Amino acid sequence: MEHTVRFASIHLARVPTGALLTEAARLAGVEINQPCGGQGRCGRCAVQVTSGTVRRRSSLRLSAEDIAEGYALACQTVVESDATVMVPEQEKVERRLTVDRVAAEVQVPHGYHFHTQQTIHRMSLSLTPPSMDDQTDDWSRLRKALRRHSDWTDVSISLPLLRRISGVLRQGDWHVSAILDVPDWECSPTCQARLIDLRPGHIAEGAPLWGLAIDIGTTTVTVWLVDLLTGQVRAQFAEYNGQIVRGEDVISRIIYASKNGGAEEMRQKVLETINELIQRACRSVAPNAAAAGAVSNAAADPNDIVKVVVAGNSTMIHLLLGLPAVGIRLAPFVTSVNDIPRLSAAEVGLSVNAEATVDCLPGVASYVGADITAGVLSAGTDESTQLTLFLDVGTNGETVLGSSEWLVTCACSAGPAFEGAGVVNGMRATRGAIEEAWINGATYEPTYRVIGSAKPRGLCGSGLISLLAEMFLTGVVDKAGNIKLDLPSPRLREGENGPEYVVAWAVETAHGRDIAITHVDIDNLIRAKAAIYAGFTVLAERVGVSLEAVERVLIGGSFGKYINVEKAIQIGLLPDMPWDRFHFLGNTSVQGAYRALLSPAARKAIQQIAAAMTYIELSADNSFYDAFMSALFLPHTDLAMFPSVSAATSDFGLRIAK
Amino acid sequence: MEHTVRFASIHLARVPTGALLTEAARLAGVEINQPCGGQGRCGRCAVQVTSGTVRRRSSLRLSAEDIAEGYALACQTVVESDATVMVPEQEKVERRLTVDRVAAEVQVPHGYHFHTQQTIHRMSLSLTPPSMDDQTDDWSRLRKALRRHSDWTDVSISLPLLRRISGVLRQGDWHVSAILDVPDWECSPTCQARLIDLRPGHIAEGAPLWGLAIDIGTTTVTVWLVDLLTGQVRAQFAEYNGQIVRGEDVISRIIYASKNGGAEEMRQKVLETINELIQRACRSVAPNAAAAGAVSNAAADPNDIVKVVVAGNSTMIHLLLGLPAVGIRLAPFVTSVNDIPRLSAAEVGLSVNAEATVDCLPGVASYVGADITAGVLSAGTDESTQLTLFLDVGTNGETVLGSSEWLVTCACSAGPAFEGAGVVNGMRATRGAIEEAWINGATYEPTYRVIGSAKPRGLCGSGLISLLAEMFLTGVVDKAGNIKLDLPSPRLREGENGPEYVVAWAVETAHGRDIAITHVDIDNLIRAKAAIYAGFTVLAERVGVSLEAVERVLIGGSFGKYINVEKAIQIGLLPDMPWDRFHFLGNTSVQGAYRALLSPAARKAIQQIAAAMTYIELSADNSFYDAFMSALFLPHTDLAMFPSVSAATSDFGLRIAK
Repeated sequence: MEHTVRFASIHLARVPTGALLTEAARLAGVEINQPCGGQGRCGRCAVQVTSGTVRRRSSLRLSAEDIAEGYALACQTVVESDATVMVPEQEKVERRLTVDRVAAEVQVPHGYHFHTQQTIHRMSLSLTPPSMDDQTDDWSRLRKALRRHSDWTDVSISLPLLRRISGVLRQGDWHVSAILDVPDWECSPTCQARLIDLRPGHIAEGAPLWGLAIDIGTTTVTVWLVDLLTGQVRAQFAEYNGQIVRGEDVISRIIYASKNGGAEEMRQKVLETINELIQRACRSVAPNAAAAGAVSNAAADPNDIVKVVVAGNSTMIHLLLGLPAVGIRLAPFVTSVNDIPRLSAAEVGLSVNAEATVDCLPGVASYVGADITAGVLSAGTDESTQLTLFLDVGTNGETVLGSSEWLVTCACSAGPAFEGAGVVNGMRATRGAIEEAWINGATYEPTYRVIGSAKPRGLCGSGLISLLAEMFLTGVVDKAGNIKLDLPSPRLREGENGPEYVVAWAVETAHGRDIAITHVDIDNLIRAKAAIYAGFTVLAERVGVSLEAVERVLIGGSFGKYINVEKAIQIGLLPDMPWDRFHFLGNTSVQGAYRALLSPAARKAIQQIAAAMTYIELSADNSFYDAFMSALFLPHTDLAMFPSVSAATSDFGLRIAK
Repeated sequence: MEHTVRFASIHLARVPTGALLTEAARLAGVEINQPCGGQGRCGRCAVQVTSGTVRRRSSLRLSAEDIAEGYALACQTVVESDATVMVPEQEKVERRLTVDRVAAEVQVPHGYHFHTQQTIHRMSLSLTPPSMDDQTDDWSRLRKALRRHSDWTDVSISLPLLRRISGVLRQGDWHVSAILDVPDWECSPTCQARLIDLRPGHIAEGAPLWGLAIDIGTTTVTVWLVDLLTGQVRAQFAEYNGQIVRGEDVISRIIYASKNGGAEEMRQKVLETINELIQRACRSVAPNAAAAGAVSNAAADPNDIVKVVVAGNSTMIHLLLGLPAVGIRLAPFVTSVNDIPRLSAAEVGLSVNAEATVDCLPGVASYVGADITAGVLSAGTDESTQLTLFLDVGTNGETVLGSSEWLVTCACSAGPAFEGAGVVNGMRATRGAIEEAWINGATYEPTYRVIGSAKPRGLCGSGLISLLAEMFLTGVVDKAGNIKLDLPSPRLREGENGPEYVVAWAVETAHGRDIAITHVDIDNLIRAKAAIYAGFTVLAERVGVSLEAVERVLIGGSFGKYINVEKAIQIGLLPDMPWDRFHFLGNTSVQGAYRALLSPAARKAIQQIAAAMTYIELSADNSFYDAFMSALFLPHTDLAMFPSVSAATSDFGLRIAK
């Protein structure tokens, strides 16, 4: 018996009863993604059956609600009558730099108010001009006026600014505006303010005043331009850290920086990146024209940037400031400084107001830096009574376990595999990177999704995780990561670099060369995931907590926004627990810097987090080595720890090599 | 249109039409003295234009003959074509300065003890090295050790030093020596220390540790190198302030500094002078070989200079620090800053330890600077119950009147006459200067004494005072300063510059020209002494004190060491009182800086002096003008005020002109 299946977009196909919807769609000339090769694993082929009868063989990944609304997996659903099927618009992936895409709306912290919460103060002053009866010097005159205005004990000033005040006072005919920072205004009734700028004339209440939250990642530098008056993030820009040309991971950068002149070169390279981002951010926003009055510029003025908060891992902070990083690399792995004194932009070399306060957030240890303390704050790990596991997945995998009661942390070197480095066809998550892949369990043919609708150029971190999970589930690799060259597919072959699986043939790629994943790549990936997994398991063991007791898993790092939880569990990178416990937070480091930029209380909380965290050095720990060795399998030596993966493998008839 | 100006010594500059010759010279790297600051007053910048067209804006001090020979004032002459300019050999200053000659023994303040009185602390530390069980960062480790050592609350550090500590800790194998400054150790039990240096290894108790006391005079810069351990002054060097070529008095320097780039040039010039003096001072002393141990160097190491105290008049301090000085010159005469924040040597530009504390002593007003507050301290004006008149005689005459109860101060512009400038045959008190003169009352023939047993080249300040007194006493001039040309002596004649008295004939002199004092010179001298005399008389009047009640007259300034009291009274520069009330103290400014270098109590006392002094602005005072007019006679309109001079004139049969 035959039926007419009408597709909403006027494509018709005639199929026999029992035909799969995917088959009908193919006949009708309708594109339905089947990344997993029609195995019902990925859920990407869901369609809505609006009339007619179908039978669902499997509805994995569909909720009861979905099913009630008629959703069905096209690859798992057969036609039993004439039917109408709506095909949802296929996912359009248009990617610029990962971080740019998610220039997401950031919530201004509840209750932020410039006049009460910001350490930056701005005030208009009218001074009595000097006369023959009052020959007080300019600085004393100004200082007295500033002190009358508030209850700070004294105001400090730098020599370069001191050189300018006499001119400004006269230029403004003794009407001036002062910008000050009172970083410790909460701590003490008698605190020291620092004059950041003095300008002629009174300034409009709403005239722009900017701050920056900066995260210096090993790979990516992120800059947020923040309106200090409202707390709003007005621009978010990210760029590759210019130091990459001197090494992809912190270790190679430390080695380079230890060479003659290397430290200064590293410092300049990251400064160039940051300063260019600042320029781009400033160009991208116009200050509120109404507030700025008649003179409305087309861009923000970097000179109006008066406060900067910097987060980043310890190595990045050391290299930014020209501090020797060599101790980070060598046992016993100590930094030069964890808690950096407050600096000025001129000292650091940032192209903003020379006197802007630069506050580098404090780190805990060589491999648990300010990115983690800031991340813990922004993730709220320290505030909740829930037992939380916070993971920052990058070139290093940092783990924090705890709650409002206690926090322990550790770090392990995952290596750059998850960032696409140290992998033959690896690349960063930019245009042309394969970011997700599926393998047909019968044919071993892959489907993949590329960032930016471009021809593929390589595999980024999430693509590698996805591909490895698929290779494992379809038996292309065994649990030890060995490629099964005896499977009947030309994609499995002995390549120049040993056994490999070809994801994309030369004809499909941007550069006209095959894109493959090699045995060595897989080894690197397994080591990376094993290190991270061992990290948090040992940490949990140390404090006597079972992983099952973990109520929330918060995942930070720009990487953290794209990995597919299911696949990350399948390779044994993330622990096997209900998906709703996982929360992807994005770049928690820059978020924490942003919080600290707006609130001295947040700044203080980060310091308290840094002080409260117990750092556990894993390299000194035998149990870490054991845990690491046990994790060098897909998903793990102990399959009992990964029940969902066991289930999936049996569902799909996975052959697990003995 | 551009022109090439060729300077004889093959220095070329390209300048546009209308450029000043001084500007062209500067571009060509040719040094031309401009003692009056390029105002065309002094005539010292005369050059000979041998080809090309120039236009003279002014030719003051040049004779018709000079002009015919092509002489032009470089600061008043503009280029109008390619030109060739001959620069006469610049005055060569024999650099055995007066202060060097009297490198006097300085008493270490009673009871000085490094360990209890000095703000500089030095300590040897042995830290527990980091280990896998203690991964504290280097700076925290060091900071903790430092805090254990004393009761300061915290230790601050600069970024450049922070960059060095990790290396030093390891170089010393965790045995290090730290040098700190705790400037306010007396003020508070919870004070902030600042790390100045960290060195590998433990240091011997007696290893050298130096400080500098600096006085920046308008004419002379004085540097004392002080052993901070013992308090002893180990070297005293002085040199002309390199700024002299841009103006002999503070006013012309302020004008020059107000020009584009002038302030920076002024800053560099005085820094060059100071830094050269520091080098000379360091080379001149070897640290105590025994204390320094085996490694005995031939010179002191500038890097061991860790504390610097600077005194000087307000203009000099402003120019040293690149602060705008223009407010000092223009009514209502206010400085940028009287009380300079503490700085580091690196900020100021001194060639000593980059982190050395630089403490510029506080001034009171534009014309009562740190040289006076330091002077008052070192003179002890503020400590004695005796009514004391303190005079600092230099290009400006500053006066302080008072006792431990009260202090009032004023300043008047004496002009450079007493320093030999603005006088046709004037020169500074160096080799070849006539420093004292006597005139035979019958023959009008002079006798003179020359500094350095050389042929005379001119008259220095003390020589001019001495000569004027003699001329007055012998009737060569009348009480109004008119030269009596009718006296029977060839030395009295109408010269190129009007009436003059020849002190030395061409055959006796080093340069083969007559040395004479002119009517105009005498006018300048009388105005200078009248200003100083009017200053202290008005000050006394203001506070209702009769000059006779003054129990001590303390005279400071390097000038103060050489004037002959009797002759100074005879011309009416000093008040007529018993000679034993006068005390010449030498350079009280550097002495005050030295006291502040050794004792925070002295530093505080100077601050209190600055705060306690009542400054009286004379230019706003009519009575000053009256007093000045009355003093424009030799010795004064009111001879009753100078009984000793009246007596002397009758002794010597003085004819006082009606």
